[in-house]
Amino acid sequence: MIVIGPLEPADRPGWERLFEGYNAFYGRETMPDGFYDRAWAEFRSGARMHALGAKLGGELVGIVHFFAHPSTTSSDLCYLQDLFTATEVRGKGVARQLISAVKAWAGEHGCGRVYWHTKDDNHAARLLYDKVAENRGFIVYTMPI
Amino acid sequence: MIVIGPLEPADRPGWERLFEGYNAFYGRETMPDGFYDRAWAEFRSGARMHALGAKLGGELVGIVHFFAHPSTTSSDLCYLQDLFTATEVRGKGVARQLISAVKAWAGEHGCGRVYWHTKDDNHAARLLYDKVAENRGFIVYTMPI
Amino acid sequence: MIVIGPLEPADRPGWERLFEGYNAFYGRETMPDGFYDRAWAEFRSGARMHALGAKLGGELVGIVHFFAHPSTTSSDLCYLQDLFTATEVRGKGVARQLISAVKAWAGEHGCGRVYWHTKDDNHAARLLYDKVAENRGFIVYTMPI
Amino acid sequence: MIVIGPLEPADRPGWERLFEGYNAFYGRETMPDGFYDRAWAEFRSGARMHALGAKLGGELVGIVHFFAHPSTTSSDLCYLQDLFTATEVRGKGVARQLISAVKAWAGEHGCGRVYWHTKDDNHAARLLYDKVAENRGFIVYTMPI
Repeated sequence: MIVIGPLEPADRPGWERLFEGYNAFYGRETMPDGFYDRAWAEFRSGARMHALGAKLGGELVGIVHFFAHPSTTSSDLCYLQDLFTATEVRGKGVARQLISAVKAWAGEHGCGRVYWHTKDDNHAARLLYDKVAENRGFIVYTMPI
Repeated sequence: MIVIGPLEPADRPGWERLFEGYNAFYGRETMPDGFYDRAWAEFRSGARMHALGAKLGGELVGIVHFFAHPSTTSSDLCYLQDLFTATEVRGKGVARQLISAVKAWAGEHGCGRVYWHTKDDNHAARLLYDKVAENRGFIVYTMPI
Repeated sequence: MIVIGPLEPADRPGWERLFEGYNAFYGRETMPDGFYDRAWAEFRSGARMHALGAKLGGELVGIVHFFAHPSTTSSDLCYLQDLFTATEVRGKGVARQLISAVKAWAGEHGCGRVYWHTKDDNHAARLLYDKVAENRGFIVYTMPI
Repeated sequence: MIVIGPLEPADRPGWERLFEGYNAFYGRETMPDGFYDRAWAEFRSGARMHALGAKLGGELVGIVHFFAHPSTTSSDLCYLQDLFTATEVRGKGVARQLISAVKAWAGEHGCGRVYWHTKDDNHAARLLYDKVAENRGFIVYTMPI
């Protein structure tokens, strides 16, 4: 059974392995010194950013990171920034349950919607996303500084 | 000459006309009561959201709304949420200068990048965006609550 | 074992069931009178259009339709118009082998490349297509007459 | 006034200049020996491929290449393969008139529709295409042989 809940101190090593897998998927093989410490501290404090974990048989097999931010045209929005599940549990509904948990959190915190970005050609993920969310035809432009 | 700067109390009517044009473009013809008051108050306080205006011959012809938010994988990011220019000044560089001003603000506030969303088929806007920013192939999924 | 080969008269009923499945996938529930007879006659004559079938345990489980046409900028091209596999054999490599067989045919007939169209959001199919072919960023515009 | 009509022998140099511009746009700077002779001969014979030109003040300023091919699921289709207009006449309606002329030809020759491919990020062209044709969400996969 999949159990979704907050990340506890004992989840630190499993969380880092999964977040490393996520970063590797997006081609970020080596992160700056202190990267994982900083993110973990943010999630533990819960002041700005939030995280949830999914456990299967007591083992952490999925993580999701998210936060609320203001919007000029609506109530606050919840941005689901990172979602990752262990390769060996794909297809079991872990990602879907993590998304549902974020949606519940967002509803409780007065957000009008949850949204996220994904690569256009991430077809495996989009098979799920097309079932649970809407692609309204928006794309992302990025300007590095 | 195009002049970019903060919105002043006297800009309130011109700003609302432009923001109405923006909302109409995205099919939002009627906004909830108090919508424009709320957004204007947010920009004037500057605590969470920010706005800049572009003037041509002393008249407000373009607006941009933006704010910084945290990121799990980088320093803060600057999200440029709304950008609109008066129809009659299109092609004069107003949008480009507004984007540049947001980039400058973001740099001064420690943001790693500026990003925004646009409709895939907004070809007129994308002619500009492809010149000043990168489309890295990300799309947006939205889950209403 | 998957066996790819020409369609024989005995394959007529199985072929029609698969082609119906293909048409239903694209929202064409009812085809004009004589539709299947006309297409079958075309494939049997082989003058303009061609078809191959995939059999698994002697049963027809996949079909592909294709033809060569001229090009202003290259040697002839092979257009793979329709590809369909029975739902119950998905993931077994049937589609991949049908595409390979069309590629072999195209090479023997002097074509410079094989190409096809697919819906942008057909993620299940694109998981395969991204492995065997290139998406060079071209989209299709259609003008009904 | 824009005049659309068949290419005449005297149009050979102007046509080649435009077709070179088209090929350069798609990154094909040098074409194989005999490339332009072969294509011109095809258009002059009219057996398989067809071309039309647009003249403005007697000068050739636009070209279009097209042909009909069979279809498994409909009457013949007309593929508009190449369309190019001189840079200095952009925005005058030359491309739109060439497309209309191909549509008329296709209707007279029993084609059910005209279609073409374009690059996803060719926003200047798509401003026109979105007005005259439909993007039904199909993309192109290519497999070189």
